[in-house]
Amino acid sequence: MGSIFGHTFRLSTWGESHGTGIGVVIDGCPPRLPLAADDLQADLDRRRPGQSHLTSQRGEADRAEILSGVFEGRTTGAPIAVLVRNDDARPSAYEHLRDLYRPSHADWAYDAKYGHRDWRGGGRASARETIGRVAAGAIARQLLGKVAGIEVLAWVSRVHDLVAEVDPSEVTLEDVEAHPTRCPDPATATAMATLIEDARRDGDSLGGVITCVARDVPAGLGDPVFDRMEADLAKGMLSLPAAKGFDVGSGFDAVAMTGRQHNDPFVPGPDGPTTASNRSGGVQGGITNGADVVFRVAFKPTATISSEQDTVTTENEAVTLEARGRHDPCVLPRAVPMVEAMALLVLADHWLRQRTVDVLPA
Amino acid sequence: MGSIFGHTFRLSTWGESHGTGIGVVIDGCPPRLPLAADDLQADLDRRRPGQSHLTSQRGEADRAEILSGVFEGRTTGAPIAVLVRNDDARPSAYEHLRDLYRPSHADWAYDAKYGHRDWRGGGRASARETIGRVAAGAIARQLLGKVAGIEVLAWVSRVHDLVAEVDPSEVTLEDVEAHPTRCPDPATATAMATLIEDARRDGDSLGGVITCVARDVPAGLGDPVFDRMEADLAKGMLSLPAAKGFDVGSGFDAVAMTGRQHNDPFVPGPDGPTTASNRSGGVQGGITNGADVVFRVAFKPTATISSEQDTVTTENEAVTLEARGRHDPCVLPRAVPMVEAMALLVLADHWLRQRTVDVLPA
Amino acid sequence: MGSIFGHTFRLSTWGESHGTGIGVVIDGCPPRLPLAADDLQADLDRRRPGQSHLTSQRGEADRAEILSGVFEGRTTGAPIAVLVRNDDARPSAYEHLRDLYRPSHADWAYDAKYGHRDWRGGGRASARETIGRVAAGAIARQLLGKVAGIEVLAWVSRVHDLVAEVDPSEVTLEDVEAHPTRCPDPATATAMATLIEDARRDGDSLGGVITCVARDVPAGLGDPVFDRMEADLAKGMLSLPAAKGFDVGSGFDAVAMTGRQHNDPFVPGPDGPTTASNRSGGVQGGITNGADVVFRVAFKPTATISSEQDTVTTENEAVTLEARGRHDPCVLPRAVPMVEAMALLVLADHWLRQRTVDVLPA
Amino acid sequence: MGSIFGHTFRLSTWGESHGTGIGVVIDGCPPRLPLAADDLQADLDRRRPGQSHLTSQRGEADRAEILSGVFEGRTTGAPIAVLVRNDDARPSAYEHLRDLYRPSHADWAYDAKYGHRDWRGGGRASARETIGRVAAGAIARQLLGKVAGIEVLAWVSRVHDLVAEVDPSEVTLEDVEAHPTRCPDPATATAMATLIEDARRDGDSLGGVITCVARDVPAGLGDPVFDRMEADLAKGMLSLPAAKGFDVGSGFDAVAMTGRQHNDPFVPGPDGPTTASNRSGGVQGGITNGADVVFRVAFKPTATISSEQDTVTTENEAVTLEARGRHDPCVLPRAVPMVEAMALLVLADHWLRQRTVDVLPA
Repeated sequence: MGSIFGHTFRLSTWGESHGTGIGVVIDGCPPRLPLAADDLQADLDRRRPGQSHLTSQRGEADRAEILSGVFEGRTTGAPIAVLVRNDDARPSAYEHLRDLYRPSHADWAYDAKYGHRDWRGGGRASARETIGRVAAGAIARQLLGKVAGIEVLAWVSRVHDLVAEVDPSEVTLEDVEAHPTRCPDPATATAMATLIEDARRDGDSLGGVITCVARDVPAGLGDPVFDRMEADLAKGMLSLPAAKGFDVGSGFDAVAMTGRQHNDPFVPGPDGPTTASNRSGGVQGGITNGADVVFRVAFKPTATISSEQDTVTTENEAVTLEARGRHDPCVLPRAVPMVEAMALLVLADHWLRQRTVDVLPA
Repeated sequence: MGSIFGHTFRLSTWGESHGTGIGVVIDGCPPRLPLAADDLQADLDRRRPGQSHLTSQRGEADRAEILSGVFEGRTTGAPIAVLVRNDDARPSAYEHLRDLYRPSHADWAYDAKYGHRDWRGGGRASARETIGRVAAGAIARQLLGKVAGIEVLAWVSRVHDLVAEVDPSEVTLEDVEAHPTRCPDPATATAMATLIEDARRDGDSLGGVITCVARDVPAGLGDPVFDRMEADLAKGMLSLPAAKGFDVGSGFDAVAMTGRQHNDPFVPGPDGPTTASNRSGGVQGGITNGADVVFRVAFKPTATISSEQDTVTTENEAVTLEARGRHDPCVLPRAVPMVEAMALLVLADHWLRQRTVDVLPA
Repeated sequence: MGSIFGHTFRLSTWGESHGTGIGVVIDGCPPRLPLAADDLQADLDRRRPGQSHLTSQRGEADRAEILSGVFEGRTTGAPIAVLVRNDDARPSAYEHLRDLYRPSHADWAYDAKYGHRDWRGGGRASARETIGRVAAGAIARQLLGKVAGIEVLAWVSRVHDLVAEVDPSEVTLEDVEAHPTRCPDPATATAMATLIEDARRDGDSLGGVITCVARDVPAGLGDPVFDRMEADLAKGMLSLPAAKGFDVGSGFDAVAMTGRQHNDPFVPGPDGPTTASNRSGGVQGGITNGADVVFRVAFKPTATISSEQDTVTTENEAVTLEARGRHDPCVLPRAVPMVEAMALLVLADHWLRQRTVDVLPA
Repeated sequence: MGSIFGHTFRLSTWGESHGTGIGVVIDGCPPRLPLAADDLQADLDRRRPGQSHLTSQRGEADRAEILSGVFEGRTTGAPIAVLVRNDDARPSAYEHLRDLYRPSHADWAYDAKYGHRDWRGGGRASARETIGRVAAGAIARQLLGKVAGIEVLAWVSRVHDLVAEVDPSEVTLEDVEAHPTRCPDPATATAMATLIEDARRDGDSLGGVITCVARDVPAGLGDPVFDRMEADLAKGMLSLPAAKGFDVGSGFDAVAMTGRQHNDPFVPGPDGPTTASNRSGGVQGGITNGADVVFRVAFKPTATISSEQDTVTTENEAVTLEARGRHDPCVLPRAVPMVEAMALLVLADHWLRQRTVDVLPA
């Protein structure tokens, strides 16, 4: 279990890093939405390896094929199946990992759970699995963008100790895509690139933070108690490979503030109440309040490093590992479309769910 | 929607702060588990108001009645319904809030969503709603404790700028319960109590951090991709009132480390691989690895404060609010059993789910 | 598990025949719907024992208390909890059943599944459990009736070999309620009552068929493949105690027809296509087509009879049982509101789900 | 929505009759199960067109490709994706159906629901969609057969007015496969084949009944109230194209019996209670009792016939239709593996769910 996500806009993903391919089935996309494979490709291109010297050099075009659910250029309401074939799978490159467990990877935990493990490049635990999510997120983006008018944008706001200055309410996709780090603060972006290059040369890796904003979100999305907007976002984000933390609005910084400092005063807006500040991050009581939804995701340094490491074999004996796979010294730039995808999926689900609430006149 | 949680161990909660009462139905508790109302009361007593001068003085005994699912002292496998009547509901105390929106509360967001709001003490958005979760969590605690041998313990590790020193692998329930702050570091606990009292007198409020550990968790719990252990924990925690952030293991601190510093080396253990450090927080690839599961939850300062605040009426007109309800100047002490409850519910669900994986011999 | 039903309009039921009471929590009812306990009572009264000499004489008023989710006479969107206390529970009357398994009851199957059984009047397996469904169904009836304009009506169309003549498109609630058998064909109703009385005097019991119609159902409800309207109706009906079969439209009678005889020709209607006949029973490809939804449910003769029967003890030893509990010699009259309840719940769920499809203009 | 089925053993299907192909993703199959594409092919071959002169002559090999979830010949616990490409799609053959609604097909209902319809051979509403179910059912068959020892077998027990004599406890797969009708009563099978041939020549079609048995089912499978074994079976069966009715055990025949005639007496068996008769059809109170699970499914005569029919255009104007597509004059022979597939999927799901009940010793 575990590979199905969503309540009303549901996706089911499958595929392993060095298997036949990766795919996703989306059940619950409304009919009549214009959709073509090209609509998925922009996001998939932002996720794929080999975009720049900062990322893994695995050679994958990651071309998406839409197998069902679209007819004459529009969705039919039937499940949309998307397939991306693996072109550059090299299982033999992982033969040396067959009988040992890489530190801070899922190898041992998967063996403990399943007792039969696809050791080729992490198998199902590889970040390559996120192709399905990004493809589904791109469909959610079409829906939210064309019908609901909601925009979702993420960027690298920190790498190691380098923190960018970015205004969440103003930053644009062009700003983000202007630099291969996906940091829209040019000076910091340049420094980040240098730091990542240095880490790579040193056989090491770096972590960081991605910030994400959803703009023009109507008030009223999210459900009380368990399916709060921030709860579903947190689940989505912590389901991403290498994610270690999530916070919304003021987040962990709220801890050092007092209630008087932290509360967002309401002020009369043109179409109803608005807040003078946004420490709530656009959600109150789990439900959007009309302000920008803003949250952060912390990522650890890539577990795969080109340095010797102590570990154990599958026979529980000590051994030394030197990693040799193709990998990213810093996952942050490629994690940006993954964060957006999960945010888009959560928002699309709740936007559709709100339809079932808006039945009787207020 | 939004009030049902869990896949295999499922709960459905209901109730408002100043309505008839609060309750929960648990569907999926295995049969033959010894259970009595007293087993719920210990956790409910840790959650209820009026425990100390640090918490709200609302006078509620919060006595749980088990209405179904238990026969001759043991569960039957049928749904377990638990009811806690509200004894000290005072709706009239909230009459002045009927026509305005309290800052950083759910008032406006609920009205935007539902168009018809129970304004009595926050209604469904009140933290009083968590009674159902804590009762269900207490049942999960019986199951995990008696059958799986898993222990879950949380404590206040920070209030405002006061940070406690606590060893997650050694701290005990007695340590936590020794002080009304639920901070098991005595010197810090005393300072926290003073800080909270000062805030109350000043009409202000404070936030903080709760740390939680699950010990003796077998390797193999959690499901890949979307239902990762840390993803489900994150959802559970961010579903708690006033929660702003979650991180697991090294969490946001991982950002400042490099891969060489951060990776947990495997070392041969007596019963299989173990890790020399635990920056993974007991989960790798979303699945427990046998180490302690350790995570943190950030809580904002209580939104209800005894100070004047700017806000708007339901007619979108500016107005000044002075709060008068009974409230906690710092939610942290009472949030400890809530955090434990959500962790217990997530762990119980995944522990039961693992049964469906362990079908064929490894 | 097993006590939660529905996807968007979800209910969670609990309670045993001779425990504290019976209840239900409905999560997903839209806000702003006028609702009071009296709205539930009419259906509960049609379900409760002791209505006539044809039914069990257990003395239960079955008064519903709404514990949450309704404020100032209208739903708030929060979960609606309903409680019915058991007033006339007599567990001691079942002491003689503690150590044996009643034929064609759930006693042995429950013991095989759970290993710990509430033997008091069937416990969770008692038809008294349906109170929760009928209460939830009454809420669905308010929603469908007041907002969607859909009407659901069921009646006893056969008892043993007595078959009523009823026009599904014309029969009214008044017709159904005119006779305690709930058969709207007066002559047949009278004969049914005599037959049931005879069976009772003879220590025997009878089965029969209930027919149900949903009128003014818009075209487009139901989902392809697994969640077809007739599939969800079938699940709902076969989940009722004593139900043995379900068919829709022509049903089992379709078997003896040829395609030319069976197909429903389309004819132009005032607002779109209509069918000249309704052998489809209002569903085509799992989706409503605008015609009346018509289906039948077969019920077996009551398993509890006042005659000696061969059975075994919990120690697997042969024994003779003479039943002594209060029971219905024919469940059909009281099953009518149960059938309606399940139909209402399925229709409400799909009616709400259709909102998430109708997002883009056709 | 509607294309995801199951709680613990979950499948997600996709694909249209004349699109790229048909597929399914199974999430929740336990790891370590031996599995190869050949294990799926036997069932797919029984379902595919062109097996005999009694079925559609569409030329499809229906070769299954397993794209994920299997490594070195055994399942890994990850989602299993299966793809069957459409080889003989002929969309142009359906051009004449683009602008009209075929009687008793889903054409109009789909348009009413979605407003944008894939008119090529029924699109998603085609019985070709069941390929995904049959592939998933074949995996469930491996699991149930190799691990649980459960066998599922269905056969054609009636076509039009021809009723076969078959003993559900003795009939074998060889008996069923001995004749292209899949009726294991040879004399009746021969008569059925003649009747079907006659109907085809006459431009007409026939319906019938399939009976299915699950043998060696342990007592205790199924869940009370909503997820009863017979309720989930009923949903599965009524989700099949052309299915009109379902009954279990005595089914609709129970109506004409009295309680004394109908009850199944318990008798001491070697390993616990058994029943002297099986009118319960192997389920009591929704839970299996250890006896054979036996049920029937009614199918209508194929809606596609080679005769002129009255219908309407998409513009709601009367028109005459003469069908020209390739089709089966009687769906029963090919529906046998579909019925088995749904039964296998329901049983596998409940067999796995029972693992979460069997946690504490009885």
